[in-house]
Amino acid sequence: MHKIHLTATQPEADYDIIIGAHLCDRVAVFIADQYNPRLCAVVTDSNVAPLHLSKLETALENVGIQALACVVSAGEEHKNIQTVSNIWDYVLQHRWERRLPIIALGGGVVGDMAGFAAATVLRGVPLIQMPTSLLAAVDASVGGKTGIDHTMGKNLLGAFHHASLVAADVNLISTIPRCELQSGLAECIKHAVIADEGVFHWLEENLPQILALHPSALTELIHQNVRIKAHIVSQDPYEKSIRAHLNLGHTFGHALEKVVGYDKLSHGYAVALGMLAATRLAMELGRCDPQLLPRLEQLIQQAGLPTTMKKHDPQAILSAMYSDKKVAGARLRLILPVKTGQVAIVTDVPDAAILEAIATLMTAGAPSA
Amino acid sequence: MHKIHLTATQPEADYDIIIGAHLCDRVAVFIADQYNPRLCAVVTDSNVAPLHLSKLETALENVGIQALACVVSAGEEHKNIQTVSNIWDYVLQHRWERRLPIIALGGGVVGDMAGFAAATVLRGVPLIQMPTSLLAAVDASVGGKTGIDHTMGKNLLGAFHHASLVAADVNLISTIPRCELQSGLAECIKHAVIADEGVFHWLEENLPQILALHPSALTELIHQNVRIKAHIVSQDPYEKSIRAHLNLGHTFGHALEKVVGYDKLSHGYAVALGMLAATRLAMELGRCDPQLLPRLEQLIQQAGLPTTMKKHDPQAILSAMYSDKKVAGARLRLILPVKTGQVAIVTDVPDAAILEAIATLMTAGAPSA
Repeated sequence: MHKIHLTATQPEADYDIIIGAHLCDRVAVFIADQYNPRLCAVVTDSNVAPLHLSKLETALENVGIQALACVVSAGEEHKNIQTVSNIWDYVLQHRWERRLPIIALGGGVVGDMAGFAAATVLRGVPLIQMPTSLLAAVDASVGGKTGIDHTMGKNLLGAFHHASLVAADVNLISTIPRCELQSGLAECIKHAVIADEGVFHWLEENLPQILALHPSALTELIHQNVRIKAHIVSQDPYEKSIRAHLNLGHTFGHALEKVVGYDKLSHGYAVALGMLAATRLAMELGRCDPQLLPRLEQLIQQAGLPTTMKKHDPQAILSAMYSDKKVAGARLRLILPVKTGQVAIVTDVPDAAILEAIATLMTAGAPSA
Repeated sequence: MHKIHLTATQPEADYDIIIGAHLCDRVAVFIADQYNPRLCAVVTDSNVAPLHLSKLETALENVGIQALACVVSAGEEHKNIQTVSNIWDYVLQHRWERRLPIIALGGGVVGDMAGFAAATVLRGVPLIQMPTSLLAAVDASVGGKTGIDHTMGKNLLGAFHHASLVAADVNLISTIPRCELQSGLAECIKHAVIADEGVFHWLEENLPQILALHPSALTELIHQNVRIKAHIVSQDPYEKSIRAHLNLGHTFGHALEKVVGYDKLSHGYAVALGMLAATRLAMELGRCDPQLLPRLEQLIQQAGLPTTMKKHDPQAILSAMYSDKKVAGARLRLILPVKTGQVAIVTDVPDAAILEAIATLMTAGAPSA
């Protein structure tokens, strides 16, 4: 088992991230030691509950904690205030107290909603993140972002609320479907570009074992990626400076998801395409080491992620980029790679160059997404 | 004008509280300098809007900021997720950005709801508190607590979100009805008990000028009280230790409100009665300087606050105290005065003594609340 202790500038962001196999009992013992609660809520969804809920409930009951399961409907379309209201009602009807924890057992959507509920019930109760997808393990569960969607856009409502413990159990994660594994890998590739040559090279070498869901490879992968993300987040908890680096591929990616349709293009696929567009744009502007692009293309392809997409109007995608919430004022703020291990925040890119980079996604070879 | 700079252990709780007359222009200039926003939301209610909204709108427009007024229905019964949802919809439909501020122009209810909206839109946007009641000026607008009610109880949902600026304009506050002034005075008396003999004595001396809404007396009163509250909050931003002192009179008070009915007993009246019950209980337990009770009774009476109430079942009030969210586990945690300037957190009080203290509120003299 790996353990990462995350500290940040603010005292409440001081917690452990544990990664390994068979962690349910450890989570239960942590909660009993830390909060000694009579009960504890487990927020999970209709996909995850049949697979993993009973194991966690048993572990909690073994240490004398009653587990209250709050099972929400699976899917991003339920990540809204109505579902959060249901979680609020559920815990408040059990006369919640400030030291009673909420466990998020699930992927990013469950983590976001349970996290937002934990942030807002009694102005904040302890949150334990147990990610069951690779994406949630390496991305969503670290950094304290919680949120829900609004009819005006994704993640427009939310709060910063750090988990007391993040437990990434590779036994839970190894049951995810292939397409979800790939989505997680897109973020891992992003972290590798931001981090350094060693991480990037390790990923190139170990992708086959990861795709075969080998527990030790998964553990190492998550460990590396959490370390990278935690390091960045601890330096900039409220996304005022370098935390923005984590948006590499995301301004393009969010716009692609919006234009193509969230149900037709998964987040990971969109991020993979977004990283390629960002890298080609950086090349075109003469800002990027030319060795990065072919290696990145190959890694994305090996992970089973798309490198091309069906034809869509580049202008519509550019407009969607401008409507993304990460735009400050009227200018686009893009994260572009410089080389493996270095990215830059760029705000002076001409629209024409961005349109060209978007167009490359639709021309090279046969569409795969 | 008085200015208090509040700093706390966490970096985001670093802001100014300004107190004085004619502050709308100062608020507008602060917002322009700090955020340079194209627009700004002003959340206010149907009572306050006709009195003060246009002055603030003009001040904002004078510095080139478009003011978007979001007027909610006045009254605690609207402090719920539906009203907050309306605020969310309103600002998000205007394509909100992280640096666009929300101003809360109103009493505690407006401050709580606008604060909760500001805490949760885009995971937090700048909040400016412009309290228009004494209670909001000395209590709600300082300390970062935001919240809404739930069918299970008051303030059960919320978040900690500090204002960037609190501007207590005595011109706005001097238009409040007498009963609201009294409610604010209950919190001021509470602060005086917690703080020191000097503050308590000043209040005894200056109550007539305050009740006459004399601007300089109001300014001094708010200044003193904000200083006391800010000092406590800065030492304990998340209510883990001494911030609990501010609950003096509140565990009794909340229970009284609940049993008598929120529409029949105002918060300030309940706190006044709660402080008397807490002081009599502390006396009975031999924990309190006997000089405090008569001075406190006189001050409460001079402020026009009740010292007695109609008959209610003390057992029902005790049960309501146990259901208050500030109860940890099964034991009541009470804040009891020791003398002027000193309170103690007590957890071992027998129920019989609490019942007796409650009963004293219904026996002494004619009922006044």
